[in-house]
Amino acid sequence: MNVAVSRRGQAMPASPIRKLAAAADEARARGVEVLHLNIGQPDVASPTEFFDAIREFKGDHLAYSPSPGIAELREAAAAYYRSRGLEVGAEHVTVTTAGSEALAFAMTACLDQGDEVIIPEPMYANYIGFAAMAGVEVRPLTTQLSESFALPAIEEFAAVIGPRTRAILICNPGNPTGAVYSEEQMEGLRKLCLERGLFLISDEVYRDFNYSGRPIKSVLQLEGMEDRAIMIDSVSKRYSLCGARLGFLVCRSEEINAAVLKMAQARLSPPTLGQVGVMGALKAPERYYEGVREEYRRRRDLLVQRLSAMPGVVVPQIDGAFYATVELPVDNGDKFCEWLLRSFSHEGRTLMLAPASGFYSTPGHGQREVRIAYVLNEERLNQAMDVLEAALAAYPKA
Amino acid sequence: MNVAVSRRGQAMPASPIRKLAAAADEARARGVEVLHLNIGQPDVASPTEFFDAIREFKGDHLAYSPSPGIAELREAAAAYYRSRGLEVGAEHVTVTTAGSEALAFAMTACLDQGDEVIIPEPMYANYIGFAAMAGVEVRPLTTQLSESFALPAIEEFAAVIGPRTRAILICNPGNPTGAVYSEEQMEGLRKLCLERGLFLISDEVYRDFNYSGRPIKSVLQLEGMEDRAIMIDSVSKRYSLCGARLGFLVCRSEEINAAVLKMAQARLSPPTLGQVGVMGALKAPERYYEGVREEYRRRRDLLVQRLSAMPGVVVPQIDGAFYATVELPVDNGDKFCEWLLRSFSHEGRTLMLAPASGFYSTPGHGQREVRIAYVLNEERLNQAMDVLEAALAAYPKA
Repeated sequence: MNVAVSRRGQAMPASPIRKLAAAADEARARGVEVLHLNIGQPDVASPTEFFDAIREFKGDHLAYSPSPGIAELREAAAAYYRSRGLEVGAEHVTVTTAGSEALAFAMTACLDQGDEVIIPEPMYANYIGFAAMAGVEVRPLTTQLSESFALPAIEEFAAVIGPRTRAILICNPGNPTGAVYSEEQMEGLRKLCLERGLFLISDEVYRDFNYSGRPIKSVLQLEGMEDRAIMIDSVSKRYSLCGARLGFLVCRSEEINAAVLKMAQARLSPPTLGQVGVMGALKAPERYYEGVREEYRRRRDLLVQRLSAMPGVVVPQIDGAFYATVELPVDNGDKFCEWLLRSFSHEGRTLMLAPASGFYSTPGHGQREVRIAYVLNEERLNQAMDVLEAALAAYPKA
Repeated sequence: MNVAVSRRGQAMPASPIRKLAAAADEARARGVEVLHLNIGQPDVASPTEFFDAIREFKGDHLAYSPSPGIAELREAAAAYYRSRGLEVGAEHVTVTTAGSEALAFAMTACLDQGDEVIIPEPMYANYIGFAAMAGVEVRPLTTQLSESFALPAIEEFAAVIGPRTRAILICNPGNPTGAVYSEEQMEGLRKLCLERGLFLISDEVYRDFNYSGRPIKSVLQLEGMEDRAIMIDSVSKRYSLCGARLGFLVCRSEEINAAVLKMAQARLSPPTLGQVGVMGALKAPERYYEGVREEYRRRRDLLVQRLSAMPGVVVPQIDGAFYATVELPVDNGDKFCEWLLRSFSHEGRTLMLAPASGFYSTPGHGQREVRIAYVLNEERLNQAMDVLEAALAAYPKA
């Protein structure tokens, strides 16, 4: 008798850039340099304290840490959050295997199979994958580039709440949008979640990448939400430590934390060496954060300036994170991104961008949009913009 | 309106040793030394090549690895399996965040919510947790201490297969049993899975801890099972690297591997530093494995000798891994384990054991059994057995 993988295994979306990765390899094989603006992999230096702590690790073997993380790390993370105005203690912090696991824990703790989560789109593509793995239905609420991907009106959220809706998930500052939600918008979500009995999960991994001049209103700062607010965090972007796989789920609900602890125990432990290093990284001085923020702010300014000068390119306001989702004067973003890699080069270089279609859960949305991660230094970013400008001029009109 | 965590978040079993952990803290606070035989945390030295590779890591930040793992590591892991007689290539190896993630991927790829997996019990307790998270039902098949926890007869498996049964999950060598399944037993499972259209998931993380004199028959060596055999592996036990969180899902099915890749992409990357280190560890010479195996074999022999000399203790044959599940002459293993920590000491020491009840999915089973992890050196193991012997003599009869 035959076997077949599960329906969810079949239904999970493949990575939207997988086909492009092969095209990028081909471009390199032709001798073309590929500039990668397709993935949020920061290139700035991590705090030196991370690698110092790793090198200083003593021991001849590597033991499990406690399931919710090393106590000293949970305390250090809580102190970092308090330095950002969030009233949390070590007991509210669960150390996770990156933001990915924090997200999976949050979804599984709040939602059962068949339950629904409302997520503004364009959204971080992996939300769709984690929802599929958890058996959770995504209800997308489309936001508009023309409105700089502002949070939909609360009435729009209210209109899609159904009997199985259990949670709202936002990303603030936003990947892939760069939007930073206002205090008023967060207050609106607060009222709605309290009235309608919803969890509010807020992915705040870009919280230190904020150029808006307004403070980030964390989900943990919303009054009366102690039993339903979950913050997702990660060191991947903040400290350029994507490979450490270290993140945090921060929550003040004892009930949620008890469920999260059981999941944490099932997987035993987050990575021990990563935790050792991050205890070092959390000692980085405030000027580390300022330096990184200024670096990305300069890149953001350069990107907006260059894109705005290209005919037909529509650029939203970008207030945070290190992404821009922009509209290009092309028939189809997927085709354009593939054409860039397969058929185009400028001064020996081409570009890999992420088609925005992969960030929409609604089929057909974002067709002319691409996401640009400004994770290259200014010189390289200028080269990338030279390539894009030339490519848009050369791209065959449909 | 109120919120409540998901049914699965509520239903997940809490760690059976959590209450005991508090009792162990209290014992230490009273000045009693607690010998830990409750957790499979090996104490022998890791290959020095692991830490050498970590120290030699160059770079000022830590990038994602490819989602299925660093290519060189996948190749090195495949070469290790080939050295153990398994015909696999790098393309069959997915690097995972420890065996835990490999198990979660395997379950999610093979089973949908409400599907059933048959697992012999006593079983690794976290199988129950992962099944709960995945929405999968566990069908336990009870094995007997009096038969050294031998695999149930194939007819017993056949008898519990229902319309939603999709897979059988075994652990070989077994945690918590120490059983090593015979070639004939594996052949029986092969035929059954082929006839009834089932996946066979085999957790082989203890494959190098085999004292039976018979080779381990891997699930990957079963003929005609290429489309349905999945091996779970981990470096945690083999190299005393529990904290590295590095494991492997090994499978020859393109369809399963495609589903696994999508899950791997959703969580982006396994830990990069752990991968760097494990590429080193995989260079360990064969004498490393031999030394570790001999160390545990000596401990096994000592443990069996000491336990067999204690009146009323029933010890099965232990052929592999580093666990023994034994019956004690006590009314209740949970109560006895707690009593050890709260009310007993011998020469200033007491013991933390794992009550076997947590390893049975069937309520009420294993009441008089405990699991002993022989992860202490012979001197310490002797001290632990002195404590157990004295404790059994002192334990109040019901």
